Amino acid sequence: MSKQTPYKTYLEENEIPTAYYNVRATMAEAASRLGHDHAPILHPGTLQPVTVADMEPIFCTELVKQELNNSDARIDIPGKVIDFYRMYRPSPLIRASFLEQALDTPARIYYKYEGNNTSGSHKLNSAIAQAYYAKEQGLGGLTTETGAGQWGTAMSMACAYFGLDLKVFMVKVSYEQKPYRKIVMQTYGAEVIASPSDTTEVGHRMLAADPTTSGSLGCAISEAVEKAVTSESTRYVLGSVLNQVLLHQSIIGLEAKTAMDKLGESPDILIGCAGGGSNLGGLMAPYMGDRLAGRPAPYFIAAEPASCPSLTRGRFAYDFCDVGQVTPLAKMYTLGNGFIPSANHAGGLRYHGMSPILSQLYHDGFLDEARAVEQSDVFEAAVRFARSEGTLPAPESAHAVKVAIDEALKCKESDEAKVILFGLTGNGYFDLAAYQQYNEGTMRDNIPSDTDLERGFATIPQLEGIQ
Amino acid sequence: MSKQTPYKTYLEENEIPTAYYNVRATMAEAASRLGHDHAPILHPGTLQPVTVADMEPIFCTELVKQELNNSDARIDIPGKVIDFYRMYRPSPLIRASFLEQALDTPARIYYKYEGNNTSGSHKLNSAIAQAYYAKEQGLGGLTTETGAGQWGTAMSMACAYFGLDLKVFMVKVSYEQKPYRKIVMQTYGAEVIASPSDTTEVGHRMLAADPTTSGSLGCAISEAVEKAVTSESTRYVLGSVLNQVLLHQSIIGLEAKTAMDKLGESPDILIGCAGGGSNLGGLMAPYMGDRLAGRPAPYFIAAEPASCPSLTRGRFAYDFCDVGQVTPLAKMYTLGNGFIPSANHAGGLRYHGMSPILSQLYHDGFLDEARAVEQSDVFEAAVRFARSEGTLPAPESAHAVKVAIDEALKCKESDEAKVILFGLTGNGYFDLAAYQQYNEGTMRDNIPSDTDLERGFATIPQLEGIQ
Repeated sequence: MSKQTPYKTYLEENEIPTAYYNVRATMAEAASRLGHDHAPILHPGTLQPVTVADMEPIFCTELVKQELNNSDARIDIPGKVIDFYRMYRPSPLIRASFLEQALDTPARIYYKYEGNNTSGSHKLNSAIAQAYYAKEQGLGGLTTETGAGQWGTAMSMACAYFGLDLKVFMVKVSYEQKPYRKIVMQTYGAEVIASPSDTTEVGHRMLAADPTTSGSLGCAISEAVEKAVTSESTRYVLGSVLNQVLLHQSIIGLEAKTAMDKLGESPDILIGCAGGGSNLGGLMAPYMGDRLAGRPAPYFIAAEPASCPSLTRGRFAYDFCDVGQVTPLAKMYTLGNGFIPSANHAGGLRYHGMSPILSQLYHDGFLDEARAVEQSDVFEAAVRFARSEGTLPAPESAHAVKVAIDEALKCKESDEAKVILFGLTGNGYFDLAAYQQYNEGTMRDNIPSDTDLERGFATIPQLEGIQ
Repeated sequence: MSKQTPYKTYLEENEIPTAYYNVRATMAEAASRLGHDHAPILHPGTLQPVTVADMEPIFCTELVKQELNNSDARIDIPGKVIDFYRMYRPSPLIRASFLEQALDTPARIYYKYEGNNTSGSHKLNSAIAQAYYAKEQGLGGLTTETGAGQWGTAMSMACAYFGLDLKVFMVKVSYEQKPYRKIVMQTYGAEVIASPSDTTEVGHRMLAADPTTSGSLGCAISEAVEKAVTSESTRYVLGSVLNQVLLHQSIIGLEAKTAMDKLGESPDILIGCAGGGSNLGGLMAPYMGDRLAGRPAPYFIAAEPASCPSLTRGRFAYDFCDVGQVTPLAKMYTLGNGFIPSANHAGGLRYHGMSPILSQLYHDGFLDEARAVEQSDVFEAAVRFARSEGTLPAPESAHAVKVAIDEALKCKESDEAKVILFGLTGNGYFDLAAYQQYNEGTMRDNIPSDTDLERGFATIPQLEGIQ
């Protein structure tokens, strides 16, 4: 590549993909060649694989079908969803030439930037699809939970667009400490409820037991699910971890690959931050398809926080997807559904488990490496990035920035002009308290001890004859 | 235009203009045809037109030359500034097709969106140019003031890029109530000082007189200017009002016109919000060039807040540019340098005067109309826009949204398919307290009484034989 490479590559709107790529179909083919099956999602009562009928009281029917689909590699994107994508997609693929200069590296660094929409992150890609299927099913509303608020904001925008009611159960401590996200959601018409609340049985019980509780994501999930299943016209939506979410996020990777192909570039290294796994799963999808089919593919790295190291220090086991132990069981890398990262952890990516798709790929060696990074290093990388490339990264995204910078510096040492592609999932406008901690030198690292981990592992269910 | 129009039009990076358009050169030509001159900027001591020598202790020398240049219509954009523009420019020209559908209007509405950069607004266009000239002059640092923080953020990014020190005097009440903007500036390496401060003589005096003062923009300007003039290697920069700033912002209009021309569209109506005037001045520049040269041009509307109505209710007179009465005198529409809009006003655009360029064009009838809008109507329009078009507008930008919607609804009544172009100058991520007021129904309108205005007019200097 010469200096003539544009800084930003925007595809045309008519190059927005018309189908999502379902990597599970390719995984199933590869697994059958290897002579093994992938672990299905299990009903927590019967320990049998879940069916559409099991899940459709909770989730929209079409989304349940997508969740369980491991045979169709292409799943059409509905026209109305493509219309909405035109508002903010294709997202730019950016050549980080200013960062390259600052690092004085021969590496060519690219990033796919998903922060140029009001929700500020890639979450909107799945939110709009989920809202669409709810509308098509004739539902009146949706419920969800949110911690810091990225997902709640995305769902608020999506529901405003399709005229759906939305109730967001927001963990009380965030509700009180992060008022800005709440105001954005309300501006888009969502009802935002501090969790635990008196509007559900489970919330009521929690408050009765401890009126001063600051809430937890587990409780917020339980409230949102209860609210959904007790109303005929309402379903529950979730913003990461699930197969359906990785499916929708494949649009990131499909666009990235088209743009890279146009530039004549193929990444040697592909990096994504990984909390629930939806962003990395989406970015790498088409490239992973190449890998699974035996074609040349990048070296894949998942960047995760050292304070919540599900891939690097977790166990590959069946576990609940939530702390409340009401969801189905998924086989995944997990720290145990009862694991809670240190309260000092400001970097996001706090989920105890990892997307079953990513977990399986990592277990099978297709996802090459998981790397845990400490948050003070992550924020140092974020500030370095912001000062050279302009954009202030979300703390989650900055995990990928950190690994990308490290890889670029290795290229400098070895004088190799490798091509690095990473996902910049969002901007940091609503994460400034964490940047302030970093600026003021009060940020702490929070690596869990072995004892901390053992306490978490103890919450993984013991399933006789299954694990 | 058919439905085939793309939603967003991105020019290529090699279509970024290579020269700013200096509308003052065309204005001077037109004035000489009309047989009159434009009012020069006056030295406040001598009441003579200011010279480069008068101003270069305060401002960078090259910027002073731009300030006084009314002969060169094209002023080259330095290559290093174009390099930086490639990070976030060309900005998209967006066909507001979702808003059109929501309004059911035959009008075709376009907006030029300047919010897709971390500073969140068009201010960065001038900030990077001003930082460049400071660097070229061999200066070590810059000083400026900021109220809400948009300009301070933009200057922080620009100074980080060129490795310049930056001191931002931030009005104390904003410093305390809007910590997020402050953290962004610090993250980009700026020193942010609550004003009044003990670091300057003027600040020291203010604090001695009233230790509990919450500060004012006037005082912050005075501190920033003092800090600049008392250091050999430091100059002062300002983000609006000045001719040089409108010059840099012409990049908005040049890109917009190129993109509109590509689409085969010419606007019938062009709308911009107007506080200091830099955004409207920039957006309309090339179209105003057409008007001044007698070619067909749009109908130009300046949208201003009813609470700070400098064009609609102000006087066209020589006034100080600052409350502290230390700056040169400019002929402009002004409410008086002592006018302060109601504390309830949350919509931005609080400046007492208006860019001398815009003022002259309005006075001469080239800027067709100024329209004052009330803030509750502005926020209603902003929410309507956000829910259909996705993006949450900055309150300032929402003044233009309000007028654009009104014009589109008129087109619906008269069944006319007019083409409307407006400037969406920034996003509202840091203005959520104002949205909360609107959501909660506690927002008030703040139209100044005639008595309020008279009090402001009394602060306009009486200059014998000049006004």
